[in-house]
Amino acid sequence: MTVTFADIHAAAGRLEGVANRTPVFTSRTADDLCGATLFFKAENFQRVGAFKFRGAYNALSQLDAAQARKGVLTWSSGNHAQAIALAGRLLGIPRTIVMPQDAPAVKLAATKAYGAEVITYDKHTTTREALGEQIARERGLAIIPPYDHPHIVAGQGTAALELIEESPALDAVIAPCGGGGLLSGTAVATRHLLPEAKVYGAEPALADDACRSFRSGKIETVSNPNTIADGARTPSLGKLTFALIRQHVTDIVPIKEESIIKAMLFLWERMKLVVEPTGALGLAALMDGTLKLPGQRVGVILSGGNVDFAAVKPYL
Amino acid sequence: MTVTFADIHAAAGRLEGVANRTPVFTSRTADDLCGATLFFKAENFQRVGAFKFRGAYNALSQLDAAQARKGVLTWSSGNHAQAIALAGRLLGIPRTIVMPQDAPAVKLAATKAYGAEVITYDKHTTTREALGEQIARERGLAIIPPYDHPHIVAGQGTAALELIEESPALDAVIAPCGGGGLLSGTAVATRHLLPEAKVYGAEPALADDACRSFRSGKIETVSNPNTIADGARTPSLGKLTFALIRQHVTDIVPIKEESIIKAMLFLWERMKLVVEPTGALGLAALMDGTLKLPGQRVGVILSGGNVDFAAVKPYL
Repeated sequence: MTVTFADIHAAAGRLEGVANRTPVFTSRTADDLCGATLFFKAENFQRVGAFKFRGAYNALSQLDAAQARKGVLTWSSGNHAQAIALAGRLLGIPRTIVMPQDAPAVKLAATKAYGAEVITYDKHTTTREALGEQIARERGLAIIPPYDHPHIVAGQGTAALELIEESPALDAVIAPCGGGGLLSGTAVATRHLLPEAKVYGAEPALADDACRSFRSGKIETVSNPNTIADGARTPSLGKLTFALIRQHVTDIVPIKEESIIKAMLFLWERMKLVVEPTGALGLAALMDGTLKLPGQRVGVILSGGNVDFAAVKPYL
Repeated sequence: MTVTFADIHAAAGRLEGVANRTPVFTSRTADDLCGATLFFKAENFQRVGAFKFRGAYNALSQLDAAQARKGVLTWSSGNHAQAIALAGRLLGIPRTIVMPQDAPAVKLAATKAYGAEVITYDKHTTTREALGEQIARERGLAIIPPYDHPHIVAGQGTAALELIEESPALDAVIAPCGGGGLLSGTAVATRHLLPEAKVYGAEPALADDACRSFRSGKIETVSNPNTIADGARTPSLGKLTFALIRQHVTDIVPIKEESIIKAMLFLWERMKLVVEPTGALGLAALMDGTLKLPGQRVGVILSGGNVDFAAVKPYL
C-alpha cells in the first residue's frame, strides 16, 4: 500500500469542478521577515474551510455502489469530520462521525449542519478508534480514517500540485503535520514535480510525536497534547503516512506555541487571511527561525481557517 | 469640478502594476442567507489593507514636480493616512499626516512604519481641517483630503471597474459610505459600465449623515459618532462626493451596529476574510434585510481589512 504521483494526478481529476482551486498569496512583509520569497497556498478558502475536503471527496468518490448505499464512518477532531460530512452529502452517501465532546464548537456545529450523524465521546475514557470500529461493525459502515488511507493522502497531495503549478520553481515546500496526511501527500507531489526541492513538516512542540518518529525511525505517540493547534493534536502518524514521510520528507520541526500564535496573528492582521492555529505552523517555522531558508522560494501550505475564536480570543 | 468615467479609466492605467488587482470571492452560504448572488470585491487585500491606496496613489502621481518635492499633507482616521504614507514613499514625496490621538493603534503604527510624519490631535478640542490647513500653509504642503477631491474619487472608482469586469452583468453594486469617496467613484464607474444597474451606499445608523443628506438634498453632519465602523465616522459628505452621489446613487441605507458586527463575523468565520467593520456594511445591509434584492446579481465592495482587534474582541 503506497501512494504515487499518479494517484495524486487522478485525485486532481476527481476534484476538478468540485473542490475549490484555492488562490496563492504573496506578501512583501512576510518575505522581509523571513528572508525568503514565500507562496502561500490558501486552503482556508477550500470547501469546509480546510484541505481535508480534498482527501475526503477523493476517498468517498471511489466507494463501490453497495458500500456507498450503506454509508461511511470516521473519527476526527474537526476538519476531516466536516469534510466527510460535506463530501458524503454531495455524493449521496450516509455518514456517521465520531467526535470528541470538547471539539471546537464551530466544528461540531458545522459537521451537523452538513447533515452527518455525530456521535461524541469523552477522550479521557474512550479511544475514538475503538468506539468507531464498534459502531462501523454494527452498522456495516466503511471506515474512512482521517489520514492513514491512500485515497486520503492522494487527495491531500493535490494542494501541493496546484501550488507548484502556480508558483515559480520552488526550492522548498512546508506543510503542517498532524497525522501526516497532508505532509505525506505534499511530499509525494513535490518530490515528483520538483525532485530537487526540500519538503518540511512543521508540528507543535507540545505534540511532537512526528518529529520524534522521524528521528527514531519508529512511530512515536503523544497523548491529548494541550496545543492551541487543534488540527495537530493527533496521537501519532499512521503506518502509511509514516512510511511516505520517511521516504520523501527532508525534516520535521517542532514549533513553540507562542510562535504559532504570532504567525497566526500575522496572517490575520497583515495578510487579512483567517487561518487557524494549525494552518500557521509553516509560517511560524520560518518567522521564528526554526527553519532558515534564506533567499529561497518557499511554498507554505495554510491548511485551514476553521478558527475556534473562543480559544484564540485571549491572544488578540 | 466633477469626475467622469474617463477619469476612472485613466486612474486604472496609473494604478496598473502598482495597486493589487484584488480577487472577487463568492459564497454559497452568503447567497443562501441573502437570497441573491453576491460577488465580493476583496479590497482588504489591497495594499495598506484598504481601497484607499487607489485614490491616494492616483492623486499623488499627478502632482507637479515642484509640489512633489515640497510634499503633501492629509488628515485621516486611518486607512487614507496609510495610503498616502505608502503612495508617497513609492513616489518619493514627503508626507505629513494629521491623525486623531485615539485612532486605532494598528493604523497609527502602520502609518509611521511607512515613513510618514504623524501629527496627532485631540478630536474633542480641535478640528483636523483647521490644524491641517495651518500646518500645510506654514510648510507649503499640498493638501490631499481623504475623499473630497476628484483624483481621490477617480482612484476609488477603479475597484468597481475591476469588479464589474470580472463578474457577470451585475444588477446592483453596494459600497460602504463614510465621506463618499468610494461610493461616488463606485457610482460613476457602475452607471457608465452598467447603465441599468442600481448603486447603493451602506452607512452606520449611528453616523447617518449621508442617509440624511441624500434625503434632504443638503449636506448634513454628524459629530464624533460612536460606531464600531471607524472608517465611516466622517462628519459629512464632501461637496464633490455629495454632488456625484445625488447624480448617480440609487439610495443610501442606515445599518445597525449589531448587523455590522454580525456581517463582519460571517466574513471572518465563514468566508475566512479579515474584513474591518466598515468593510462589512454592504453585506450587513443584505443580511439584515435593510436592502432586499431577491434573485439579483449584486457586487459587494469589502472596503478594507485593517481591524482594531482590541475594539472587536468583545464580540468574538
